[in-house]
Amino acid sequence: MKILNKDQILALYNPAKAAAMIKQGFIAYSEGHVQLPPVQHFLFKEAHGDCCVKSGYLEGDELFVVKVASGFYRNAKQGLANNQGLMMAFSALTGEPAALLLDEGWLTGLRTALAGALAAAALAPQKIDAIGIVGTGMQARLQLEALQTVTPCRTVWVWGHTQDALDQFEHEFAAKGYRIHGTLDAEPLARACQLIVTCTPSTQPILQSEWIQPGTHINAVGADDEGKQELATELVARADLVTVDAVSQCAAYGEVSRAVKAGLLAKELLVELGQIFAGKHPGRQNQSQITITDLTGLAIQDVQIAKSILV
Amino acid sequence: MKILNKDQILALYNPAKAAAMIKQGFIAYSEGHVQLPPVQHFLFKEAHGDCCVKSGYLEGDELFVVKVASGFYRNAKQGLANNQGLMMAFSALTGEPAALLLDEGWLTGLRTALAGALAAAALAPQKIDAIGIVGTGMQARLQLEALQTVTPCRTVWVWGHTQDALDQFEHEFAAKGYRIHGTLDAEPLARACQLIVTCTPSTQPILQSEWIQPGTHINAVGADDEGKQELATELVARADLVTVDAVSQCAAYGEVSRAVKAGLLAKELLVELGQIFAGKHPGRQNQSQITITDLTGLAIQDVQIAKSILV
Repeated sequence: MKILNKDQILALYNPAKAAAMIKQGFIAYSEGHVQLPPVQHFLFKEAHGDCCVKSGYLEGDELFVVKVASGFYRNAKQGLANNQGLMMAFSALTGEPAALLLDEGWLTGLRTALAGALAAAALAPQKIDAIGIVGTGMQARLQLEALQTVTPCRTVWVWGHTQDALDQFEHEFAAKGYRIHGTLDAEPLARACQLIVTCTPSTQPILQSEWIQPGTHINAVGADDEGKQELATELVARADLVTVDAVSQCAAYGEVSRAVKAGLLAKELLVELGQIFAGKHPGRQNQSQITITDLTGLAIQDVQIAKSILV
Repeated sequence: MKILNKDQILALYNPAKAAAMIKQGFIAYSEGHVQLPPVQHFLFKEAHGDCCVKSGYLEGDELFVVKVASGFYRNAKQGLANNQGLMMAFSALTGEPAALLLDEGWLTGLRTALAGALAAAALAPQKIDAIGIVGTGMQARLQLEALQTVTPCRTVWVWGHTQDALDQFEHEFAAKGYRIHGTLDAEPLARACQLIVTCTPSTQPILQSEWIQPGTHINAVGADDEGKQELATELVARADLVTVDAVSQCAAYGEVSRAVKAGLLAKELLVELGQIFAGKHPGRQNQSQITITDLTGLAIQDVQIAKSILV
């Protein structure tokens, strides 16, 4: 059994290869060629933590993958990363353990960012004057970095809860050649940006419908569980096209689930990214449509990024 | 992260300690103190394999456990064990990986046998003249060995599909001081034995109701999935007491599920082992009752046997 630590994994990580494989994974998922059993959830109330086990198998592969990913929100206080996790690959021919990827949650972060970049590449408008990043955490950074291959735009509005967090974000990305506008008010961000990524654990809508300009594409990344919400329900209902990683998950507990449950958005209108990537749905039809992609996270992304490291 | 291989695990394995912990685990499960998310299943049709991911957490513990266990039924032909698997323990305080148990499926086999022994200790009649083992595989061997601590009886009837398998079984256990009666016909076994363990992957009933004598206890271990059956439905319906590891699982796909679904056995009459072990149900009421225990396998058993190795 091969055992790789985080540094070894990151040394083998090839974003372009991983993105191409994740794209194929979304297509295979939407075509029904992926076994994705139900996600297992744990809640550790006293330790203020949670954990999910996501497993997947792309039929025909020689490997299947089991991922254990957790968030323990007091870890940082004791010098540990809040997000912990590992992935394991097993032979789909014999069941033998093939590899243990001690990635400390990095592959989950990276595959989530790559899905955002793939959605943006397929659905964002042609002209992007400014990118909006809602959130200042690790996933906000990874999403912005992953968009480098999607658009040459380096003008970025960032929304955060505190000026300190915004200053830190600006400091980091200014050093990489970005022009960063930090803001504690999401409205100017929403009005200025044509490509917006929301990646917060918010339970209240941050982006209001009336702020969003025609032609905007929004990747909604943060709301991956019941109770979380980043976009006003009216904004989801108003969008010209709502795409999702998985209809089943997004209609149940994703960002778009409120609009679906309120009867403001027919579940049948949700389009899976796999259909877009396979060319079975045209995606954005003109430069004035508002498009939204709801990403709840699929184990096939874990499968594909693990394979991109191993195979 | 501690990594233990099979030999290291078996050297640390203490059956009495593990059994006591598994017993406590059943009690905690029935009292609602265990988080057991839904089991994840994979099917590998072309490789003739399957895999399940079982995870559990006994609330208040410092560890939670994720198990990946598979069966690939052509492995033996290439010199590999059909059953493969590993267990992982994670900190329930920080989410960090704590231990990887490369047990090659042994801990699953052992915890299943220990559950059988615990059920027999609680429910078998006082006088056992002969033990019946239905099946000649690894689990049949482990079940018989685990019963050593339950009864001094060393007279055993064994049913198998082939004389070769029976001869091999007899050869092994005669060397350990057992009197083994091998049989290709299950009827004399059923008529002679007061404690019977069925552990085959059969899809047809092997034990008929009319063969079973008053006072018999049966552990039904093999039927852990839809389509599997070892006991005639009438036998399950006729039993004076039907106990189960988990009502939810056994009523859905265990040995007793056919009788429940056919309306021959009320789900409300199923008694969980945890209730018996906690003294909340008296169990066997007299020496002439027929009692059955249906074991489908619970992740809390994995949690407890892993802890018995690690803690």
